[in-house]
Amino acid sequence: MQKGLQTRATIIEAALGLAANKGLEGLSIGLLAEVTGMSKSGVFAHFGSREELQISVIRDYHVKFEEEVFLPAIREARGLPRLRAMFERWVRRVSFEIDSGCIYISGAVEFDDRPGPVRDALATMVQTWQDALTRSIQLAIDEGHLTDETPPEQLMFEIHGLILALHHDARFLRNPGSVERARLGFERLLAHSLAATDIGSDAASSRSKEARLARR
Amino acid sequence: MQKGLQTRATIIEAALGLAANKGLEGLSIGLLAEVTGMSKSGVFAHFGSREELQISVIRDYHVKFEEEVFLPAIREARGLPRLRAMFERWVRRVSFEIDSGCIYISGAVEFDDRPGPVRDALATMVQTWQDALTRSIQLAIDEGHLTDETPPEQLMFEIHGLILALHHDARFLRNPGSVERARLGFERLLAHSLAATDIGSDAASSRSKEARLARR
Repeated sequence: MQKGLQTRATIIEAALGLAANKGLEGLSIGLLAEVTGMSKSGVFAHFGSREELQISVIRDYHVKFEEEVFLPAIREARGLPRLRAMFERWVRRVSFEIDSGCIYISGAVEFDDRPGPVRDALATMVQTWQDALTRSIQLAIDEGHLTDETPPEQLMFEIHGLILALHHDARFLRNPGSVERARLGFERLLAHSLAATDIGSDAASSRSKEARLARR
Repeated sequence: MQKGLQTRATIIEAALGLAANKGLEGLSIGLLAEVTGMSKSGVFAHFGSREELQISVIRDYHVKFEEEVFLPAIREARGLPRLRAMFERWVRRVSFEIDSGCIYISGAVEFDDRPGPVRDALATMVQTWQDALTRSIQLAIDEGHLTDETPPEQLMFEIHGLILALHHDARFLRNPGSVERARLGFERLLAHSLAATDIGSDAASSRSKEARLARR
């Protein structure tokens, strides 16, 4: 059993690597057998179908994303510090992935017109993360770091847009400086909503410094 | 010759429809022959290779995009009216495409790790549009509609993010209200940069009305 789990983990690890390059639709039992040096029936014993394999990869990606982005961020103080940590870790994750691609982002384009369990699994994971982000914005309002005029879902939508633009410009256009654009965009978005607290005004002054840099 | 051009246009039209659903990578001479009822060699006579076919589709898409988005917008007064028209027509184009997909956006994900002439053609078209948008922001600054503190490329990056978030949420998550989120996001971005002119203050007051709506 222990060995079975280990083998399964090895296959998923290889599948994640393949999916990051070829997309979830590029995965197949045959290709994985080749890459892992196993027999097709050996891989098949762990994943009854290609769909089950794709869904396992999505779940595994989600666990890794939570470990790298969500869990360390929620150890930060609730409110703006936690929201900033979530964004910063998300930016770093997407930047590290510039050479391989984020399966949330590429998967959304691959599966947006393919209804079924794989799309549903992917959408559920993406929605879970969006909800966590919206909640952290709401907490920043509750803590008085952002004004209560702030519309949480709207701000989440705008923040997500910055991440998508970062992924697009860095990965497709290969524009240098995309990470800095995303970070500055985040500060500009927050500037709408900062309450007049210590945390708020620190951020506002760093924002205007960054804005001066951006105009150079 | 006239008839040859007509046939070529028919093939490209069919190819555009296929690419919107299956992606540019889903295109093949064989599939197009099937869809258009022509022989493979007939299609091949017009496009010497699959790559040439893909590039022709990208060029044709670009012409259509210019006709629907760019050309009507530049008939608006330079400055904020033109910038608003560009954004609004872009939003409408992406919304109409919710059921088929924008080949700029899906193509960026398909080709971000496939260097070659197809990626280059796609990147050139996307860059052309981004440059046009940046220029229109610069004109809005020159006209005094936006403050001269506005960083044009940064604002363009942020506006592009809203369009990508709209495409993602409407097409993949099927969230209702994504179009309104993108529009409100645009007004919130502009609010940073509006100069104290008539055009500016009209926009600022419509923004605060929209912000109240969003919080309901």
